[in-house]
Amino acid sequence: KDACIDHQREIRTGIPEVIYGAAKSVEQIITIARAQIATGGPVIATRVEREKAKQVQLVLPECHYHERASMLTCLERRATAPSFRGEALILCAGTSDIPVAEEARVTLEALGSPVKTIYDIGIAGLHRLLLHREVISQASVIIVVAGMEGALASVVGGLCTAPIIGVPTSVGYGASFGGVSALLTMLNSCAPGLAVVNIDNGFGAACMAFSINRQNPTG
Amino acid sequence: KDACIDHQREIRTGIPEVIYGAAKSVEQIITIARAQIATGGPVIATRVEREKAKQVQLVLPECHYHERASMLTCLERRATAPSFRGEALILCAGTSDIPVAEEARVTLEALGSPVKTIYDIGIAGLHRLLLHREVISQASVIIVVAGMEGALASVVGGLCTAPIIGVPTSVGYGASFGGVSALLTMLNSCAPGLAVVNIDNGFGAACMAFSINRQNPTG
Amino acid sequence: KDACIDHQREIRTGIPEVIYGAAKSVEQIITIARAQIATGGPVIATRVEREKAKQVQLVLPECHYHERASMLTCLERRATAPSFRGEALILCAGTSDIPVAEEARVTLEALGSPVKTIYDIGIAGLHRLLLHREVISQASVIIVVAGMEGALASVVGGLCTAPIIGVPTSVGYGASFGGVSALLTMLNSCAPGLAVVNIDNGFGAACMAFSINRQNPTG
Amino acid sequence: KDACIDHQREIRTGIPEVIYGAAKSVEQIITIARAQIATGGPVIATRVEREKAKQVQLVLPECHYHERASMLTCLERRATAPSFRGEALILCAGTSDIPVAEEARVTLEALGSPVKTIYDIGIAGLHRLLLHREVISQASVIIVVAGMEGALASVVGGLCTAPIIGVPTSVGYGASFGGVSALLTMLNSCAPGLAVVNIDNGFGAACMAFSINRQNPTG
Amino acid sequence: KDACIDHQREIRTGIPEVIYGAAKSVEQIITIARAQIATGGPVIATRVEREKAKQVQLVLPECHYHERASMLTCLERRATAPSFRGEALILCAGTSDIPVAEEARVTLEALGSPVKTIYDIGIAGLHRLLLHREVISQASVIIVVAGMEGALASVVGGLCTAPIIGVPTSVGYGASFGGVSALLTMLNSCAPGLAVVNIDNGFGAACMAFSINRQNPTG
Amino acid sequence: KDACIDHQREIRTGIPEVIYGAAKSVEQIITIARAQIATGGPVIATRVEREKAKQVQLVLPECHYHERASMLTCLERRATAPSFRGEALILCAGTSDIPVAEEARVTLEALGSPVKTIYDIGIAGLHRLLLHREVISQASVIIVVAGMEGALASVVGGLCTAPIIGVPTSVGYGASFGGVSALLTMLNSCAPGLAVVNIDNGFGAACMAFSINRQNPTG
Amino acid sequence: KDACIDHQREIRTGIPEVIYGAAKSVEQIITIARAQIATGGPVIATRVEREKAKQVQLVLPECHYHERASMLTCLERRATAPSFRGEALILCAGTSDIPVAEEARVTLEALGSPVKTIYDIGIAGLHRLLLHREVISQASVIIVVAGMEGALASVVGGLCTAPIIGVPTSVGYGASFGGVSALLTMLNSCAPGLAVVNIDNGFGAACMAFSINRQNPTG
Amino acid sequence: KDACIDHQREIRTGIPEVIYGAAKSVEQIITIARAQIATGGPVIATRVEREKAKQVQLVLPECHYHERASMLTCLERRATAPSFRGEALILCAGTSDIPVAEEARVTLEALGSPVKTIYDIGIAGLHRLLLHREVISQASVIIVVAGMEGALASVVGGLCTAPIIGVPTSVGYGASFGGVSALLTMLNSCAPGLAVVNIDNGFGAACMAFSINRQNPTG
Ligand SMILES: Nc1ncnc2c1ncn2[C@@H]1O[C@H](COP(=O)(O)O)[C@@H](O)[C@H]1O
Ligand SMILES: Nc1ncnc2c1ncn2[C@@H]1O[C@H](COP(=O)(O)O)[C@@H](O)[C@H]1O
Ligand SMILES: Nc1ncnc2c1ncn2[C@@H]1O[C@H](COP(=O)(O)O)[C@@H](O)[C@H]1O
Ligand SMILES: Nc1ncnc2c1ncn2[C@@H]1O[C@H](COP(=O)(O)O)[C@@H](O)[C@H]1O
Ligand SMILES: [Mg+2]
Ligand SMILES: [Mg+2]
Ligand SMILES: [Mg+2]
Ligand SMILES: [Mg+2]
Ligand SMILES: [Mg+2]
Ligand SMILES: [Mg+2]
Ligand SMILES: [Mg+2]
Ligand SMILES: [Mg+2]
Repeated sequence: KDACIDHQREIRTGIPEVIYGAAKSVEQIITIARAQIATGGPVIATRVEREKAKQVQLVLPECHYHERASMLTCLERRATAPSFRGEALILCAGTSDIPVAEEARVTLEALGSPVKTIYDIGIAGLHRLLLHREVISQASVIIVVAGMEGALASVVGGLCTAPIIGVPTSVGYGASFGGVSALLTMLNSCAPGLAVVNIDNGFGAACMAFSINRQNPTG
Repeated sequence: KDACIDHQREIRTGIPEVIYGAAKSVEQIITIARAQIATGGPVIATRVEREKAKQVQLVLPECHYHERASMLTCLERRATAPSFRGEALILCAGTSDIPVAEEARVTLEALGSPVKTIYDIGIAGLHRLLLHREVISQASVIIVVAGMEGALASVVGGLCTAPIIGVPTSVGYGASFGGVSALLTMLNSCAPGLAVVNIDNGFGAACMAFSINRQNPTG
Repeated sequence: KDACIDHQREIRTGIPEVIYGAAKSVEQIITIARAQIATGGPVIATRVEREKAKQVQLVLPECHYHERASMLTCLERRATAPSFRGEALILCAGTSDIPVAEEARVTLEALGSPVKTIYDIGIAGLHRLLLHREVISQASVIIVVAGMEGALASVVGGLCTAPIIGVPTSVGYGASFGGVSALLTMLNSCAPGLAVVNIDNGFGAACMAFSINRQNPTG
Repeated sequence: KDACIDHQREIRTGIPEVIYGAAKSVEQIITIARAQIATGGPVIATRVEREKAKQVQLVLPECHYHERASMLTCLERRATAPSFRGEALILCAGTSDIPVAEEARVTLEALGSPVKTIYDIGIAGLHRLLLHREVISQASVIIVVAGMEGALASVVGGLCTAPIIGVPTSVGYGASFGGVSALLTMLNSCAPGLAVVNIDNGFGAACMAFSINRQNPTG
Repeated sequence: KDACIDHQREIRTGIPEVIYGAAKSVEQIITIARAQIATGGPVIATRVEREKAKQVQLVLPECHYHERASMLTCLERRATAPSFRGEALILCAGTSDIPVAEEARVTLEALGSPVKTIYDIGIAGLHRLLLHREVISQASVIIVVAGMEGALASVVGGLCTAPIIGVPTSVGYGASFGGVSALLTMLNSCAPGLAVVNIDNGFGAACMAFSINRQNPTG
Repeated sequence: KDACIDHQREIRTGIPEVIYGAAKSVEQIITIARAQIATGGPVIATRVEREKAKQVQLVLPECHYHERASMLTCLERRATAPSFRGEALILCAGTSDIPVAEEARVTLEALGSPVKTIYDIGIAGLHRLLLHREVISQASVIIVVAGMEGALASVVGGLCTAPIIGVPTSVGYGASFGGVSALLTMLNSCAPGLAVVNIDNGFGAACMAFSINRQNPTG
Repeated sequence: KDACIDHQREIRTGIPEVIYGAAKSVEQIITIARAQIATGGPVIATRVEREKAKQVQLVLPECHYHERASMLTCLERRATAPSFRGEALILCAGTSDIPVAEEARVTLEALGSPVKTIYDIGIAGLHRLLLHREVISQASVIIVVAGMEGALASVVGGLCTAPIIGVPTSVGYGASFGGVSALLTMLNSCAPGLAVVNIDNGFGAACMAFSINRQNPTG
Repeated sequence: KDACIDHQREIRTGIPEVIYGAAKSVEQIITIARAQIATGGPVIATRVEREKAKQVQLVLPECHYHERASMLTCLERRATAPSFRGEALILCAGTSDIPVAEEARVTLEALGSPVKTIYDIGIAGLHRLLLHREVISQASVIIVVAGMEGALASVVGGLCTAPIIGVPTSVGYGASFGGVSALLTMLNSCAPGLAVVNIDNGFGAACMAFSINRQNPTG
């Protein structure tokens, strides 16, 4: 009874309330998801571990679990998405960054946006990136996910005109300080046309990308 | 002779090379500006103090100085801008944040984008913000400039559908740690559809906004 | 035998010695609780996990366990509370902040103060807060509990005359740095009439609120 | 013209808008002060250096300058203050902390609250503090200003029932990190009934103390 | 075979090599302990968990385990200690600091120094400390162990002539940052005659105290 | 009139109140010095810049200025010092550390202790240190002053039996972070019998050394 | 299918792609290793825990597991190594640093370089280091692995002409901050001819040493 | 008289003692330089501002001042350099990084090593770097100097076999934290064969490069 769901959020901001599953019990997730289904809204839950997800699905079998993204969605009620300017593109630097990239991908799909992904093309082997220059130049918005030194975002930023959203990840050890190194790299990028979200925040990057990619941003 | 100007940058990224004036001498600024004028490009220089600017203007009188933004521009050669989706909107929280907001405004104008500003509407007096709800709901992209606790970006994020770019400023003292407090606030915002640039980086926010506001992002 | 209980603390400061349960064994908690019961004082223990609490209750069944607050109390001996100026109000931003808010609520009740709560009204959906303006304007002291960017305290601070105590929580991830982001937000608030306690310190906020809400502060 | 003064702030929060002088020019201070005088409000400006203040006074001779507090006030229009519960008390640890303590004192007086001060009673010579126990026990709210290790607040907290507001100062060197050491000390105090404001924020502490000391907090 | 024991350390520095058990396996501890016994030296091992200790004792039953200090010692071979100036005194602020205080006590005893302890006398109840003024004034060196805000060292420093060694502990949460708060407090103490060792380093404090308390420091 | 001098400090702690000159005006220093002279105490002032010192000397010509230590002393009234165990030794790593070493030397002399110095013997040229092994082995207490990586204290700690006081200095740049690097090195030293004072705190190190070197610590 | 192996890396940089095993599943490691074996490359995997390694070996029995280094290698296909200038030398300060030193040793051997090790010769017992001066003076490149205060690298740097690579380790507690203390020490070393890699990065140090030790660096 | 020059350093480490001019007076620099000239050694002084340099040259006209490097050298006495493996190459990212790059260049030349430079080729315009691939592939050791996000070192690391020394610079603002951002980027680089020196430490990078580039490292 303590949760106070913000049912008008989609009307106000274009993005429905999304359940942050990390600190919630199975019971709490079920309660909120039910309320959202009851009011005709989609269910989108992030940071739901496999075990929790399975228990939610026992009660709400209409929910779909996205393993690599640790997300739970139920989009049946979601009739129409806005129209979009083009395709969002998600790039990631190493295989360890994939879970964060997948959180972004599943969120974008849940919000209705077309999305494409290219993974494991970090700058230690630059040719891997340059191979994909054409796809990169055609995206309407690009999400770059990278841990360790996080320099991929700057390199992409020097190659294309689309707005770029950097997602630093906590991949690394020692002086990566749980993602701080990659975060600072992206904040200090000398490539303009790049903005940054919180460490590991694939969800937030997807919301920003969705907002940019909508055909009619004012409405 | 050590500077290696990147003349193709505008073709590759949509944004011409911009002179970062903070650590450059008057001579260096003049040399680079001349090279840019010679190759038909616009001159856009940020972080140029008043005294330096005056000396540059003695030699290059076609340059215009923007006092509050500490910027120097020479846009005569700039024939055509891309077409835009709508108007970019710049909000700032307090009067001390205005210089950063102005850096964003002058940059957007130099890049050709329509832009509007509303200043000094921080959340300690929320009614000031709510008065402007209509203008806010019509912007195609919003830049929010705020120092101290930097919470304005989150509040705006809960009210509109446009993508938001947060610019934390170094305004404050003590535990504001030169803008770190505002930066963290914006990175941790619970309002999705918000991404962040470096502390005091009005220029970078404008580039991101320009990139979002272009009619044809892939082009 | 190494514990040296401060039995006169209530006389000196108005607040009895409270057991910090986090680093104590079941045996230590029982020993101190017994000594407090023996000298006629109330038992108030914070940060007691469920399992530990159950073992304490086996020996001291007069103790009551508060699940969501992780607190153990035995207030039977507590005859009279001071009289109070009004009602303390506890607000919290998200459902994940509730345990900290509950630590504050149970502490205030144990100290005898009237208290009311409104939970899950973070600033991403400002209307939820504005709905409660009247209750807010009637409180004699307000505790605001918020994690992530922690901006709720500033927004409330701009709306009311009562003194506000901010409690940053460790809810969040990445650049929230275990509550540092919310802490800095509250310390740098541009809304005056706000002071802050340690991250997750619902107990300390309640003590400050109790001290403010007492009818006769010098007594 | 960019400043947007919040004339209703005193009605909403009990505290009028106060000018933060640090980053403002003489012209900006004069403009805002005039607008406040014109609308019948008091002028309270903090962080105004001596030279700036003199220039403001040339134009607005009704303003009074408080040297040690670096504050400028014009209270002529301020008819009636609320009634108060008692006397606020300001303690400071060393002579170097006095400017911050004075900022608190002048602010409290400007807001109409009775106030008393005891300075230079740091814990290296505890007897100096114990000498004043009676005054301490009679205050309705106490502000403790301390730099370096900032332990005075905890010691006072163990001796009295009044709510305490800690103000860490940037006095110190080396590992005091501009006030961070004193700030952490106060946030981690084991003496309950203590809350903290930003480093060097005598003004904020005074606003909190004023809010606590008002006879009718809801009004 | 990779360990290279420093058998002459006691001759050079007065303190034998001590085994740092935290990252060592049972086998490694046994090997080093055996080598020390073989060369007639004492065995002193710190940070040895209960389970590890039991397994060591199965093989080396002459070792004694100190539960609260998590230390293992075998002092049989230790014939003569130097003579001492007086008694070392260990004070600690809260019951949670006792394990660190005990590490100091057991180390001092193993090194042969007379030692006395007074625990749980933190500054929130100052009278507890003042009760022991006489004992404090008679110590030849004092170790003060304190977590959270760590202010006890400064208060003791203002009361006595003996050199004081501060040991900050990691007791606390939130902004105590694993002992950093107490460490900074002690480093910034305004009470001279105080020096500090690493967080939780009861062992190091004891070595310093031993070195001070020796009758003939040059010998 | 706000200063509250602690005239009994020498009786309580063995060390008289010392004037911290950094944030004090010439007038404040003169006032306090006069009060100390009047009550028969010595004057010891630290962190007094040359210009300030000259102005103080115009009024109080009995004060002596120590250029390299930036200290002002007037010891005429100081009749008798306690007797000492031996000689204190001050080592410093580089020539840039000398001002801090001199603050320690002048303080020790003012307090009456015998003292010897050896400067510029950092570990990049270890033979310079080893040349002085005999002097080192005869000191009753050693102060080691070092900036940058601050490793000299550990090396000395492995060579002698006397207690060592480490003074990290702010000498260095980049990742020395104003002395933090040297401070951490000393706190984490694997050489036991070493304790640390604040960055650049030659004064504090001297007080600790004085306290250790007194013949009768309890009195 | 998401991994994009960089098969040309050895040709471009002299070092083949190495599997970073920390965040990879057994399946992922097997897939990549197989692809590397299939293309004739060596398999070198770091940070593979014992249990994971065993499962990989069930499928790929040609892989060898290096217990202390937590590495898995399969070098059968590796025909010829480049020729080398001399022997690389690995020194480590304490027994707890050995796993990091071993990661460096196994990597160097896998890359074909001759390598020698001397362990547990930290500066608390300097004679242990000085004993090995001749071996030190003959190495063509030296890796120094040290935690806690990490001063060994500076001391070695003052004794030899070979280039030195410092590897700070996370060994320590309290103010060692997970290796930051040792990292800062090495970065601020006053001994020139020393460069540093990330905390615990034995692998990276070995790559740098290999690159230095190759007979023909340009090839 | 307090300076203790290490005349044998060149014999021990291959690199003569170099004067760190930042905190030294003109007199100190002259004294040390004279002693070095007298003993037949070269004079190499870093961080000498123009004004100081001029005054030194008045007395020692044989010294040469390197404006952009802020260095002073007198190499007349330097007869023979060792022979070298090839050419050292210095790359820098932006024009603001040139002073640090020049400190490295002048140091390498003073030590006798062949050296080449390519400046202003940061990754925002990657083609500028790729143009120089052949020169890069021929260097025997590479120094990469970069501020802001510092990603140039990683990109170069993915392209060549030579050992790379990264020098982060303090160029940048806001979240660059005086070079920390670039430092962390380089420490976390996913390109192996890269080691790092302190922020702005062109001198240290040159010493490491010299040490690598010597024909006979053991000698
Ligand atoms: N992975 C995520 N990262 C950041 N914010 C999230 C995430 N998932 C959901 N949210 C936001 O968190 C809010 C829900 O918080 P709560 O009330 O605690 O469930 C929603 O409004 C979402 O916008
Ligand atoms: N608890 C402790 N804290 C700090 N240093 C310790 C501790 N216990 C032992 N030591 C030191 O650590 C060194 C042993 O390191 P190791 O070679 O890893 O066993 C000894 O020389 C001791 O002086
Ligand atoms: N250089 C110094 N560093 C640290 N503390 C000092 C220093 N000089 C004086 N003090 C202390 O500062 C106190 C004086 O503070 P104040 O009341 O501000 O003058 C004295 O009690 C001294 O113990
Ligand atoms: N222990 C290690 N530390 C740092 N980098 C490593 C380590 N082991 C492997 N790597 C690098 O990590 C890269 C592989 O990353 P990934 O694509 O996530 O497997 C390889 O190119 C290696 O150069
Ligand atoms: Mg990969
Ligand atoms: Mg304003
Ligand atoms: Mg919610
Ligand atoms: Mg004082
Ligand atoms: Mg207790
Ligand atoms: Mg020197
Ligand atoms: Mg060892
Ligand atoms: Mg450039």
